[in-house]
Amino acid sequence: MTDDTIAAGKNGRKVSQYVIRRLPKYYRFLDEIAAEGEQKISSFEMASRMKLTASQIRQDFNHFGGFGQQGYGYDVIQLRGEIGKIIGVKNQNRAVLIGAGNLGKAVAMHLGYVDSGVQLTGVFDINPDLQNIDLCGIKISLFTNENIAAFCKRERPTIALLCIPKEATQLVASTLISLGIKGFWNFSHYDISANFKDVFVEDVNLTDSLLTLAYNVNHNGDD
Amino acid sequence: MTDDTIAAGKNGRKVSQYVIRRLPKYYRFLDEIAAEGEQKISSFEMASRMKLTASQIRQDFNHFGGFGQQGYGYDVIQLRGEIGKIIGVKNQNRAVLIGAGNLGKAVAMHLGYVDSGVQLTGVFDINPDLQNIDLCGIKISLFTNENIAAFCKRERPTIALLCIPKEATQLVASTLISLGIKGFWNFSHYDISANFKDVFVEDVNLTDSLLTLAYNVNHNGDD
Repeated sequence: MTDDTIAAGKNGRKVSQYVIRRLPKYYRFLDEIAAEGEQKISSFEMASRMKLTASQIRQDFNHFGGFGQQGYGYDVIQLRGEIGKIIGVKNQNRAVLIGAGNLGKAVAMHLGYVDSGVQLTGVFDINPDLQNIDLCGIKISLFTNENIAAFCKRERPTIALLCIPKEATQLVASTLISLGIKGFWNFSHYDISANFKDVFVEDVNLTDSLLTLAYNVNHNGDD
Repeated sequence: MTDDTIAAGKNGRKVSQYVIRRLPKYYRFLDEIAAEGEQKISSFEMASRMKLTASQIRQDFNHFGGFGQQGYGYDVIQLRGEIGKIIGVKNQNRAVLIGAGNLGKAVAMHLGYVDSGVQLTGVFDINPDLQNIDLCGIKISLFTNENIAAFCKRERPTIALLCIPKEATQLVASTLISLGIKGFWNFSHYDISANFKDVFVEDVNLTDSLLTLAYNVNHNGDD
């Protein structure tokens, strides 16, 4: 899926990926203000603090049924709960990490401290030296076709975290899809979406991000 | 700066951040096809392989002077060079990494293998146990106001890579801006752009990315 594709909201209504991408921002924001002890918040205050418009927030929420009356403000804990439920932060999605280098380690640890409903159940790497080393309480396994197939049959993961070189990704992604993987957190710079349909891919492209930063720093002050 | 703000292109023409974000994609694509030995490429072939439209590619390139004649195709090496020059991949931008945990390490190593014109010159962490440990050929320094001020006065970095907790970021960003930092590669989940003007911030928000993936996997097949 790309940024402009859609997924289903309440009652099968279509929700654009732009709206979906704002759900985690609402969720984190509500987490923070709940921690500050706030109990009610209006769409105007949310808008002002999140640099959105109140109308945009209300439109976003309407995709999911609205979450409460305008004018009275939202109950912070309840709204956080509703949005968490929509994202599925309490669901049990089993994940497997492929590639246990520094980035893989960082990604695995990140998974451990975010309440996302995604649970790491296996770690694989082609480097035999990493075998049986502990990562977030899981022993790293050697990546072979046999090992990954046996693991997927046993543990039934639906999500794969790919922290492997671009060159390796097409084959690995194809193998994983045949073993039941439905979603990828893809750090590999290989365009999975362009080549495999019917899976969801969330790309994190650090090189593009770094080069965008470089451009902007180099052109800072041009105008 | 946010996605819809603008920077200056050729002759002071404004270039939207959407166009700027495609530059790294063109650059990486041209890198790959140069490696495959292709010498000429048309905007139609680029469009088909990059899932864009030829007209969008030509419009993007026109912001920077066009890069060659329509119909004859672009010279791959030359176009790659021009786009690299615009991004500034050969420039010397000095960077400092704040936070040398797993994510910081992964980010530092990534910087080392991308031709971005951004060069790591210092690494700081508040954990004294990490002091003097080598990361990518640089000894980690203890983060204190005195140490970071002395470093910035001596090395004049313009870019900071922030791999620190959200709570610490406001103060650290404010300190770094006062010491001459112009751009942030921000992994901290703190919204620097909303609070500091006149700096460029490239955010990498892993939590939002993970929660977006969770939503999409949970709602896969809703329609």
